[in-house]
Amino acid sequence: MKHKRTLDICLTPLMIPLFDLSNTKVVIIDVFRATSAMCVFLNNQGSKVIPVATTEEAKEYQNTFNEHGEKILVAAERNGSIVPGFDLGNSPLLYHNKDFKNKSLVITTTNGTSAIVKSKNADKGMVLASFLNCNAIVNYLTNRIEDNILIVCSGWKGRFCIEDLLLAGLLSKSLMSKQSFSNYSDSILLAINTYNSAYPNLLSFLQSSSYVSRMNLQKDIEYCLQTDIMNIVPLWCLNNSNVGFFTSADNI
Amino acid sequence: MKHKRTLDICLTPLMIPLFDLSNTKVVIIDVFRATSAMCVFLNNQGSKVIPVATTEEAKEYQNTFNEHGEKILVAAERNGSIVPGFDLGNSPLLYHNKDFKNKSLVITTTNGTSAIVKSKNADKGMVLASFLNCNAIVNYLTNRIEDNILIVCSGWKGRFCIEDLLLAGLLSKSLMSKQSFSNYSDSILLAINTYNSAYPNLLSFLQSSSYVSRMNLQKDIEYCLQTDIMNIVPLWCLNNSNVGFFTSADNI
Repeated sequence: MKHKRTLDICLTPLMIPLFDLSNTKVVIIDVFRATSAMCVFLNNQGSKVIPVATTEEAKEYQNTFNEHGEKILVAAERNGSIVPGFDLGNSPLLYHNKDFKNKSLVITTTNGTSAIVKSKNADKGMVLASFLNCNAIVNYLTNRIEDNILIVCSGWKGRFCIEDLLLAGLLSKSLMSKQSFSNYSDSILLAINTYNSAYPNLLSFLQSSSYVSRMNLQKDIEYCLQTDIMNIVPLWCLNNSNVGFFTSADNI
Repeated sequence: MKHKRTLDICLTPLMIPLFDLSNTKVVIIDVFRATSAMCVFLNNQGSKVIPVATTEEAKEYQNTFNEHGEKILVAAERNGSIVPGFDLGNSPLLYHNKDFKNKSLVITTTNGTSAIVKSKNADKGMVLASFLNCNAIVNYLTNRIEDNILIVCSGWKGRFCIEDLLLAGLLSKSLMSKQSFSNYSDSILLAINTYNSAYPNLLSFLQSSSYVSRMNLQKDIEYCLQTDIMNIVPLWCLNNSNVGFFTSADNI
């Protein structure tokens, strides 16, 4: 009999050090908007996404070229806006309906890339989840790997964000409907209960949430809440120089 | 017009540094079982509760006497059990139906006293909340003070505990029914939604939670989930030697 694996949810990146990352695949969630935008870029044939922690690191990639001879796209977002001096941010609409074949995207965001950087020690790497590719991630985690799973909610500057918990709830519920895990935590109970409260009208549930009420980003928000519109599975890889990036599982 | 105050919830003590504690009263919650036990002790005429961070500090109080000439009671709990060498732990049943007139209790627990120690910098001090004294705390916060309010959930070793969130939800909902606050956060939305899901059968909701399923403490758990059975308001004070303790608001 196979040894059962564990599933848990980390409510904010501040709590990552409390979890054992050995034999673990981390699922990074930043619904509004980093992981959603990265999924759209890779789904539109983008070659790789290189997340970096600071705008200074991002700037170093400006006017450089990738291994396909294509100029690297560089995106930087802070507090919901594109950082001055950069052409791109974390709105998925910027990446929608475009062809990024052979292109690379370097990106730094307020929360999502910070959660990624803090999860780099996960033994089995990371995968990016959004509502857009939720079912593809569930199928990948269920059928393709046997590692323990830790879902990391990016939150907002260390604080808790409810939209990330909703997706963590949907992911947990879907995973648990396909197999049993060896543990159950209060975070999973919370996430599934919250998702069930909000379903089927997530947008209505989120009307009084911090992001939706604070940001004037109705189109982005509606875009990010679409469920299962793409099959992309963005996986963490390292190149020969040990630089980490996400690429489609189909490329590996 | 009075300046409106803020209300927020800190999901685990790890997140305390993210909150501004100036002009703020912190409400400490550790439903299972530290703040419940401390409320019972003070409600039974106990003179003061002195929370300490370590069992070593607690030990120093053994065989000492308080200002009333009474031998100090010393309690220590780790991982749900009384620490060897101590007579008392954090079960409220240990303090139920006894007379603690003029007695002092020194106590260290896995989570509750740690949350207290981390909240000591709150400008306006702390107050202890449990389901047992919930309405008394709401009335105190509404009618007696005008400070900002931060509800701190003690959790379990830095992780999230759902029973603390339930009480945070009841407190927030009750406070917001009596007055409006100048902010609204995802943590408040989460807490109230979770409390509303669980009400009226909190014990049934908690059956699959970590504490209830892991600990064989059915009587303690049922005791701690009783709502509004006492009017005690345990307030944080400092003595002349700058040692902090909780005492009933009626004593001040």
